[in-house]
Amino acid sequence: MGTKRQGRYTVMFEKPPIIRSYAAIVGEKESEGPLGAYFDTVCEDPMMGQDSWEAAEGQLQYTAVLKALDKAFLRPEDIDYLFAGDLLGQTIATSFGVMELQIPHFGLYGACSTMGESLSLASMAIDGGFASRVVAVTSSHFASAEKQFRYPLGYGNQRSLASTWTVTGSGALVLENAEECSEQAAKKCVRVHGITTGKIMDYGIKDSQNMGACMAPAAALVIASHLKDMNRKPEDYDRIITGDLGTVGQKILFELMREEGYDIEGSHMDCGIEIFDHETQDTHAGGSGCGCSAVTLCSYVMHQMEIGEWKRVLFVPTGALLSKISFNEGLSIPGIAHGVVLEKDG
Amino acid sequence: MGTKRQGRYTVMFEKPPIIRSYAAIVGEKESEGPLGAYFDTVCEDPMMGQDSWEAAEGQLQYTAVLKALDKAFLRPEDIDYLFAGDLLGQTIATSFGVMELQIPHFGLYGACSTMGESLSLASMAIDGGFASRVVAVTSSHFASAEKQFRYPLGYGNQRSLASTWTVTGSGALVLENAEECSEQAAKKCVRVHGITTGKIMDYGIKDSQNMGACMAPAAALVIASHLKDMNRKPEDYDRIITGDLGTVGQKILFELMREEGYDIEGSHMDCGIEIFDHETQDTHAGGSGCGCSAVTLCSYVMHQMEIGEWKRVLFVPTGALLSKISFNEGLSIPGIAHGVVLEKDG
Repeated sequence: MGTKRQGRYTVMFEKPPIIRSYAAIVGEKESEGPLGAYFDTVCEDPMMGQDSWEAAEGQLQYTAVLKALDKAFLRPEDIDYLFAGDLLGQTIATSFGVMELQIPHFGLYGACSTMGESLSLASMAIDGGFASRVVAVTSSHFASAEKQFRYPLGYGNQRSLASTWTVTGSGALVLENAEECSEQAAKKCVRVHGITTGKIMDYGIKDSQNMGACMAPAAALVIASHLKDMNRKPEDYDRIITGDLGTVGQKILFELMREEGYDIEGSHMDCGIEIFDHETQDTHAGGSGCGCSAVTLCSYVMHQMEIGEWKRVLFVPTGALLSKISFNEGLSIPGIAHGVVLEKDG
Repeated sequence: MGTKRQGRYTVMFEKPPIIRSYAAIVGEKESEGPLGAYFDTVCEDPMMGQDSWEAAEGQLQYTAVLKALDKAFLRPEDIDYLFAGDLLGQTIATSFGVMELQIPHFGLYGACSTMGESLSLASMAIDGGFASRVVAVTSSHFASAEKQFRYPLGYGNQRSLASTWTVTGSGALVLENAEECSEQAAKKCVRVHGITTGKIMDYGIKDSQNMGACMAPAAALVIASHLKDMNRKPEDYDRIITGDLGTVGQKILFELMREEGYDIEGSHMDCGIEIFDHETQDTHAGGSGCGCSAVTLCSYVMHQMEIGEWKRVLFVPTGALLSKISFNEGLSIPGIAHGVVLEKDG
């Protein structure tokens, strides 16, 4: 029992689940960015053939899960649990998007940290012996997020330089108990070795156009706690990857980590910074949204690990916990982050 | 590994977690209902001393968790994980409510099924060896729910007879690995023996004033699947307890169960029907909201089990997956339910 826990925040798995397959589906703008070549599917129609932005986002999730299942020659009925969520009120893109799959369902809300949260719980379900195969999925859509949190698209509001651009996309992963495949096959797979679960952190920032600043303290807590819990150094990781801090949040993260005695500049990567070319794509501080870290993980990050370029990665999606109501009521924007350790032996 | 799973939907735990303590906090109307004497705390101020309905609901969660911890002589730092959620967009009552506890946090969205979802994942965390002690909590508030889903309170709209009344309240439970206490003490505790996890079910109903009908198919799926997975009969349970189907949803549930070959009329109870006196409290079809099943569990249900009146209960909170946006876009209201088997040996 006690052996799985490492300190206050971290759990290391006894039988690390393997990532059997994964898929990333994105919109056109994302496909034109630096990671364009790594995505499975590009949707040229931002409506995904649906009648609303919310339904379009749901369709992204549905398509991403089916694609990930296809790649592993699996069907929805082979999956024991689905761990899924999105940014919208009552996670409505998820509910309508994945309904047709008819998989026993755990709905999550972790804002843009959801890919980390769903991977954490999905891995627990497998390591704990409750499931053989599970799917973790999340999504975001530029238009549904703008409608939910900001201004009508037609209004054409000016965006601040600290603001980020919500990624249109969904990433899905199939996790499997390693005992389901041969030892040799398992060795070739990326595995979830552990998780570091964050707390809600509030530094009192109220600017919804500067979410990187809101989330940086939560990311710093998870990364510093993980390194302390594991008694490791930043150099023990090929990459420490945050979700969507953007260029503004990244600077704050470096500063906060220095205060904790860690220099992570050499190993840090932020999905929000990588996904767009900020010079030519007018995305300001970076990409954001649950989909940002999800599609980056399910494309470039997994690719780098599979070719052996990276052996060990700490993946830390970051979420800003605001709603239209909390913002209008003048509340601050707390943040949360969920860390996942990915490793490949072979 | 395979031994924990029972069929497609059910998992039975090897080391069933004990319910170490629990607390229910409610508003004045709930305290005047038939279960009034069982609640720990009654808040006479519906604003809970806060500035908004959302903050009031958050304060309900905070108070319920602290009360449950107090009853077990525990502090927030003794808790490994918090599994929490509510009905509001971006689960904002939860984020602001429990933030101060500073417990590693998994945010959930299962609409009014959240108490079942949080108990399921919390139990997995303990049986899987990932945590020694965890808290599961959820809440709802009449005023924050009306504001989110229906009409401004001052508008004084007429309510349909099929409609339910959102419960103002929060229920919190502390779950513990039984190895943390003596065998004798564990025997005296109610334990979570297993879970049956639901899928999203959509019968195409669009009437947000009739949520019982929207959720009944999801409840029927979980109850029938559980009985099949376990090869048991309804009579094997002292009570089969749904969350907030109300009188209208209950009739549909009985019908759907009969189609599956089960008569559950003798053992069924619905928290929404029990919590108010519908003749005198003008609550129409019953109570609803995440708080409805949560406070009924953390008061009357746990009391009946602790005094040995009930030995085995199937607790099945039910959720209606709608948002203001999905409703305004003319979509149907799918449902989901999460089943939890509670047993007391001693």
